[in-house]
Amino acid sequence: MENFERFPLTIYNSLSRKKEAFTPINTPFVGLYVCGPTVYSEVHIGNMRSFITFDVLFRYLSHLGYKVRYVRNLTDVGHMLDDDGEDRVLKRARLEKLEPMEVVQKYSNYFHDVCKQFNLLPPSIEPTATAHIIEQIQMAQKILDQGMAYVSNGSVYFDVEAFDKKHGYGALSGRKIDELQSNSRKLDGQDEKRSPLDFALWKNAGPEHIMRWPSPWGEGFPGWHLECSVMSTKYLGETFDIHGGGMDLKFPHHECEVAQNVASSGEAPVRYWMHANMLTMNGTKMSKSLGNAISIEELINGGKFSRAFSEMSIRFFLLQAHYSSTVDISESAIEAAEKGFERLQQAWKALINMERSSGEANMELDAATKKLLDQVYVELSNDLNTPKAIAVLFDLANTVNSIKNQQIPGSSLTEETLSRLKLEFPKILEDILGLKLSSEAKSDHLDGVLELMLRMRNQARADRNFALADQIRDQLKDAGVELKDGKNGTEYELN
Amino acid sequence: MENFERFPLTIYNSLSRKKEAFTPINTPFVGLYVCGPTVYSEVHIGNMRSFITFDVLFRYLSHLGYKVRYVRNLTDVGHMLDDDGEDRVLKRARLEKLEPMEVVQKYSNYFHDVCKQFNLLPPSIEPTATAHIIEQIQMAQKILDQGMAYVSNGSVYFDVEAFDKKHGYGALSGRKIDELQSNSRKLDGQDEKRSPLDFALWKNAGPEHIMRWPSPWGEGFPGWHLECSVMSTKYLGETFDIHGGGMDLKFPHHECEVAQNVASSGEAPVRYWMHANMLTMNGTKMSKSLGNAISIEELINGGKFSRAFSEMSIRFFLLQAHYSSTVDISESAIEAAEKGFERLQQAWKALINMERSSGEANMELDAATKKLLDQVYVELSNDLNTPKAIAVLFDLANTVNSIKNQQIPGSSLTEETLSRLKLEFPKILEDILGLKLSSEAKSDHLDGVLELMLRMRNQARADRNFALADQIRDQLKDAGVELKDGKNGTEYELN
Repeated sequence: MENFERFPLTIYNSLSRKKEAFTPINTPFVGLYVCGPTVYSEVHIGNMRSFITFDVLFRYLSHLGYKVRYVRNLTDVGHMLDDDGEDRVLKRARLEKLEPMEVVQKYSNYFHDVCKQFNLLPPSIEPTATAHIIEQIQMAQKILDQGMAYVSNGSVYFDVEAFDKKHGYGALSGRKIDELQSNSRKLDGQDEKRSPLDFALWKNAGPEHIMRWPSPWGEGFPGWHLECSVMSTKYLGETFDIHGGGMDLKFPHHECEVAQNVASSGEAPVRYWMHANMLTMNGTKMSKSLGNAISIEELINGGKFSRAFSEMSIRFFLLQAHYSSTVDISESAIEAAEKGFERLQQAWKALINMERSSGEANMELDAATKKLLDQVYVELSNDLNTPKAIAVLFDLANTVNSIKNQQIPGSSLTEETLSRLKLEFPKILEDILGLKLSSEAKSDHLDGVLELMLRMRNQARADRNFALADQIRDQLKDAGVELKDGKNGTEYELN
Repeated sequence: MENFERFPLTIYNSLSRKKEAFTPINTPFVGLYVCGPTVYSEVHIGNMRSFITFDVLFRYLSHLGYKVRYVRNLTDVGHMLDDDGEDRVLKRARLEKLEPMEVVQKYSNYFHDVCKQFNLLPPSIEPTATAHIIEQIQMAQKILDQGMAYVSNGSVYFDVEAFDKKHGYGALSGRKIDELQSNSRKLDGQDEKRSPLDFALWKNAGPEHIMRWPSPWGEGFPGWHLECSVMSTKYLGETFDIHGGGMDLKFPHHECEVAQNVASSGEAPVRYWMHANMLTMNGTKMSKSLGNAISIEELINGGKFSRAFSEMSIRFFLLQAHYSSTVDISESAIEAAEKGFERLQQAWKALINMERSSGEANMELDAATKKLLDQVYVELSNDLNTPKAIAVLFDLANTVNSIKNQQIPGSSLTEETLSRLKLEFPKILEDILGLKLSSEAKSDHLDGVLELMLRMRNQARADRNFALADQIRDQLKDAGVELKDGKNGTEYELN
């Protein structure tokens, strides 16, 4: 029996606005597409929340026994325009006097480094927009052929009204086309578009545009939304299982994706849409354009708050909220998460060498513990409820830490349950939630041995055996450890 | 005065077969293109030799004050055919039941991990063949327009004879077209090519081919040599400064690159061609097809030789030979390099905290030391002579280690020279040669403290103070360090 049968997954589907049982098109294979970063600048911690969410989804689907093909793209052509209409990749290139692809390389490398820092698994395929220009031209042509796009001045625009008449527009975001129309600004005569709702599939490149490719409509570059429609279906099929992304991408980006795929193939591309909610700061969405984005460096190396935090504390902090809720980031909130994660790590470490002592088991506690272990998966299978799963892990950690601290007997759990706990507790933390024991934990050996050494030296001094005490100090110095005797005892410094 | 003026660089140019003064087209900018890996399987240590060579070139050019744009590609469409004519990426995909781009992603990730392990700097741009299909079609069309290619059965072939008549073929490899012709196997009637020397610019895709794109000649994929001609000139200009690659790529790959660029633009693409020689094993070239390739894992984790070696020992081993010589890899050769690198690391570490003691300087040694420091750059500027530069570093290390071991006075060098040494010795090792202090050096603290602890325990046992000896063992165990008393003394194991 596969895990996905024991703990069947439900997903809140943004399209149906309901929690639904998850059934892949072709079990055990699952196709998962997630909108990746635009690599024109450094990702910030707000961006990372979404990527961490879907990393956990990828890990959990794999744990459930699904064979997942996980596609996460890199947007390397600057579709997104600033308010002044300038392509962001190009703008950045001009500022830094770099070739646009040098900018792309720099920030792609940065993104990959950050993903490693936060312990994200690499996706199965990480396609780039510039590597799929031909396919984007082909899809634009198909939509033109279907009469749901038009050419204007060397650009190709999606005709939202024509699409709406045939297929209906706005199902994902719940927006109605007439409301959108009455809310949108009037077009001045200069605009190439027939309606303000229309969006570019292909943009005519002005002479200043460095990134440009030939097309049936002249030299240009693909529109903002087209790459995801193309790359998701190229690698996962015309209809695939799950599409994820940040909540801010639901409209217009994902709505336009649906329209493009339906217009070109007649098929709805995605069965389950999942949206990770925003990271806020004092209640405001964190974004680079608002100027309130926290950089990864500011968190990891300090600068934003009164001290630095580890990647794993931040990852844990983010997972303590459900992905569909907003999370407000603050020093005190991360600190609280850090303390909680520390408790889990204590149990994690204690379990490594824990041996059951002989004696009677507490069968009530034993049964409860087994139930709690199952409960973790039940919570995760319930629309990836990481906060509730973590709450259950805290209950389990309490039992482990109580045994470790001899508050309850070392025989409290049966051999079978203790073995299961030793196996699964770290697996849930490491393999599913993607957390690692902190590096402080790793230098424990040195700390532990040094503490022992200091105790022996103190004993020697108490015994008035100053020769031995000095010898320890000198030999430690040779090993690169300098002892400093101070008012508050002896501290050491590594050279 | 820039470093490149103080230590002017000479390069052995494979094209002229002479050592030449290096003069960039547009000082201080330097364009450097290097053929990267084909990501259809794991790179092996033979491949890495070439990448490490050009990593040092990139680092040294930057050190000299040049602004380098370093382009190294990833070949992600399987141009290279096995003997049975099957595209290698596809073949691998079939074996592993993966989508070809999943294979590409897996081995690209692997390559990037290995580059990090061996401390290679990322190139400025790392373009992929699949991201430049349009540009490859454009160049094939240009060559067709120039009458130096022909279409045959949906494929486009470069017409070597037509090219030779106009521009001359074979200058880089020194091969003559009539000799090549008489040496090449006769074509059977089925062949699409007019001459066995002709090579594909575009290949018609059979129905089994997954990786395929539309073109003016039907659906297909680019020929093996085209991507480098396209991507080098796209990012570095029609003529650029340096093109590097493994010696085995000189013919036919680089010869074909030259022909393609000259045919399409009329310009020779490259001013300095550099070729890194082969890594051999018992005198035979290491290659995957010969079955004698050593994997990175076999070296780093053990399996090939009687023990494992660190990445930095291997990097150092490779740099102890000039890039233009073959290097034969063997356990004893890496071991010798490891010992040598250890000596340099001793000096490196000693310099970190070295302070000049008061006293008279040895002005002769001082002058010699200053001269040696300059000599390192002189050697590196002499066609990247890393073995001679390393030999000079050994001389410098001798001085440092002699001071450290008090064999010569701590005042032997003047303050000025010691400061320069403290600054430049690590910079040459770390920034230019790309070496890092070994991780053993980093765990020295634990090793050192533990050795001290074991000595104290042995002393306690010699003093028949068994209570203390046992106490040490038990407390170490609490700190996660298990002692094992054996015939050869006490060993420890970290838990």
